[in-house]
Amino acid sequence: MRNQKNMSGVFSPVVTPFNADLAPDSESLVRHCLWLLSQDCGLAVFGTNSEANSLSVEEKIDLLDVLIGHGVDAGRMMPGTGACAIPDSARLTAHAVKLGCGGVLMLPPFYYKGVSDEGLFRFYAEVIERVGEARLRIYLYHIPPVSQVPITLKLIERLLKEYPDTVVGLKDSGGDWDNTKSIIENFPKFSVFAGTETLLLKTMKAGGAGCISATANINAGAICDLYVNWRAPDAQGRQSALTELRSVLERYPMIPALKTVVAYFTSNEIWKRVRPPLVEITARQQENLLAELKARDFSMPGLG
Amino acid sequence: MRNQKNMSGVFSPVVTPFNADLAPDSESLVRHCLWLLSQDCGLAVFGTNSEANSLSVEEKIDLLDVLIGHGVDAGRMMPGTGACAIPDSARLTAHAVKLGCGGVLMLPPFYYKGVSDEGLFRFYAEVIERVGEARLRIYLYHIPPVSQVPITLKLIERLLKEYPDTVVGLKDSGGDWDNTKSIIENFPKFSVFAGTETLLLKTMKAGGAGCISATANINAGAICDLYVNWRAPDAQGRQSALTELRSVLERYPMIPALKTVVAYFTSNEIWKRVRPPLVEITARQQENLLAELKARDFSMPGLG
Repeated sequence: MRNQKNMSGVFSPVVTPFNADLAPDSESLVRHCLWLLSQDCGLAVFGTNSEANSLSVEEKIDLLDVLIGHGVDAGRMMPGTGACAIPDSARLTAHAVKLGCGGVLMLPPFYYKGVSDEGLFRFYAEVIERVGEARLRIYLYHIPPVSQVPITLKLIERLLKEYPDTVVGLKDSGGDWDNTKSIIENFPKFSVFAGTETLLLKTMKAGGAGCISATANINAGAICDLYVNWRAPDAQGRQSALTELRSVLERYPMIPALKTVVAYFTSNEIWKRVRPPLVEITARQQENLLAELKARDFSMPGLG
Repeated sequence: MRNQKNMSGVFSPVVTPFNADLAPDSESLVRHCLWLLSQDCGLAVFGTNSEANSLSVEEKIDLLDVLIGHGVDAGRMMPGTGACAIPDSARLTAHAVKLGCGGVLMLPPFYYKGVSDEGLFRFYAEVIERVGEARLRIYLYHIPPVSQVPITLKLIERLLKEYPDTVVGLKDSGGDWDNTKSIIENFPKFSVFAGTETLLLKTMKAGGAGCISATANINAGAICDLYVNWRAPDAQGRQSALTELRSVLERYPMIPALKTVVAYFTSNEIWKRVRPPLVEITARQQENLLAELKARDFSMPGLG
């Protein structure tokens, strides 16, 4: 039986809007978060698709403060707080806990490659000890295609044994369903999130907790519908529709593509901006992407 | 003709000592830096072998201040100031320039993989503009085995064209001599450092500026001797001796191995400590490494 206190459902790694001087535009971010919450979607701010590692710790702390200050429900937030340096990860994690965030999504340190499970265990243990809060709930972030540093089953086992009330789940963005399945089967109390809604139905059938998916930024409602109705007779049809829509986005670089769609439906051009080293998609790509979505009668309900 | 104002010679990516609470021990760092300078070795503090990405920006700023405060020559310092986030890189770089550092060694942002040269150009350009100092001298840091984000010839060309007085050199830790040679040949004004002393003689013959090498932490004097005497008749013999000694170190994980040697010759056990996700080498490995060095009559002159 899953731990009922853990977070579950559909979360969006919330895209981050930038002004012309590349500073985060907190006002637009608040609006997008409130829209996501209106779709029953949780907020995995500071994920890979949020360009979180392109932000300083100070910028992330300021954004968290602004979000909470604008009434965004901290209990529905799972900010990314992993970093290469222990002090950075501990500082941001402590702040998130202080604000009452329901959990944090924690990347392993990702500069050194080929590091040992022992070293990663020590990293997470040190962050947990420094934060020193019984309320802390950590979801490990396995995304080897980007981080190049995997979270192995042995590492999970050891962390679970040492910190059973703190290390409570994982997001699997590895793209390998067998790995996701193994984690769910091996750790029954663990809350496992698929890294894409294309695996949401499979994940729910296997006993997972939901998904944390880039495309929830634009398609939150439909993804949440499948989460709620995964036992319904038409669940496979819903899954196929989600997967088809995602395949459109995957023809483009994901982050600027998502931002193009949000910019269009919010009539807010600043959303198109990304921080280097990312670059926006071309005007032609933007047109093609929006045309493909229009051909599918896609919309962001309540926006455009 | 190389730019005479650029930095050249042998630099050590200075290993960073940590206390039991994992805080940097600035006193031991100052002593090691002064020893390196006594060997005519420059200080590439905050490199890969310094565990720089395991330190917060604040910790690095504090260490720079302490080093300068203890009379370490800023003109001989080339701190690593690259980071994934523009504000972090700009802040640390600006501080290094303010303190008078001779140059900075700048990693590209390394979280996202497969990023474009356009995105990397914009990253470096934004950092340069934010720092806004004519005195700034950037050495690009090409280390694809770790960063997974290469610095291509096309990127160098564009940066050199736009910022000829600021982007003045590169450290090549790619392990591919043909690439090092190409960069030296294509950009005659560029100061190119090999990432290992095993390529020092080749680099000098090709017109390079020197090397920035992990093992300079323990073998600085001998490496500097080859740098000074690379045209001497016995240069190849010196090179072979350096290469042989390095091969001993390369049988162990480099960073804890270097720290083991420094701990031994300074009789300062704290040097053995590393920050997670790295782990120390085993007691057996430490013994074997020191035995191999003793068999070669290795010492750190002036220390032990």
